[in-house]
Amino acid sequence: MVLERALIRIVDGQELEFERSLLAAREVIAKAPGFRSIRVLRGIESPHVYLLLIEWDSLEAHTDGFRGSELFGQWRALIGAHFDGAPLVEHYAPLPPG
Amino acid sequence: MVLERALIRIVDGQELEFERSLLAAREVIAKAPGFRSIRVLRGIESPHVYLLLIEWDSLEAHTDGFRGSELFGQWRALIGAHFDGAPLVEHYAPLPPG
Repeated sequence: MVLERALIRIVDGQELEFERSLLAAREVIAKAPGFRSIRVLRGIESPHVYLLLIEWDSLEAHTDGFRGSELFGQWRALIGAHFDGAPLVEHYAPLPPG
Repeated sequence: MVLERALIRIVDGQELEFERSLLAAREVIAKAPGFRSIRVLRGIESPHVYLLLIEWDSLEAHTDGFRGSELFGQWRALIGAHFDGAPLVEHYAPLPPG
């Protein structure tokens, strides 16, 4: 499993529209091969910033698979208009719980 | 539920020691009132950076409770020596899954 961590800053005042658009966008990303789950959270210190935690089978499922697919175009078309700047995306691999 | 997101940069070469120390530190933080769960992940693009996702009952359980407690001193004593700079900590509130 690989976790995609996306930080997305939303245009001031468009938070609720973004959240509504995200409902449809979640349906799109859920169709991507290798997609496992998505959690969406909103910043407490920075309420314009949303944290998306997306689990994929592998790094490639996100970078080569989803990003190169038509689904990515649909995903961005649904939510991209509300972005204030480019999302900050990084990937993380889980450690064993120990 | 409130999610604490901590980004911790580790001194180059001390990653395995940090991971070992974290096993003991997890036992400490698990004793804190309001603590729910912790996930630890390691950066793929930035292998010196660890992402800690810690769930608390409330913001105050972390900021007033844990940080003001003796447990926080124990937690930091176990892992703090490996930090390269101060951790970046933010809090997020979950959106309903829609």
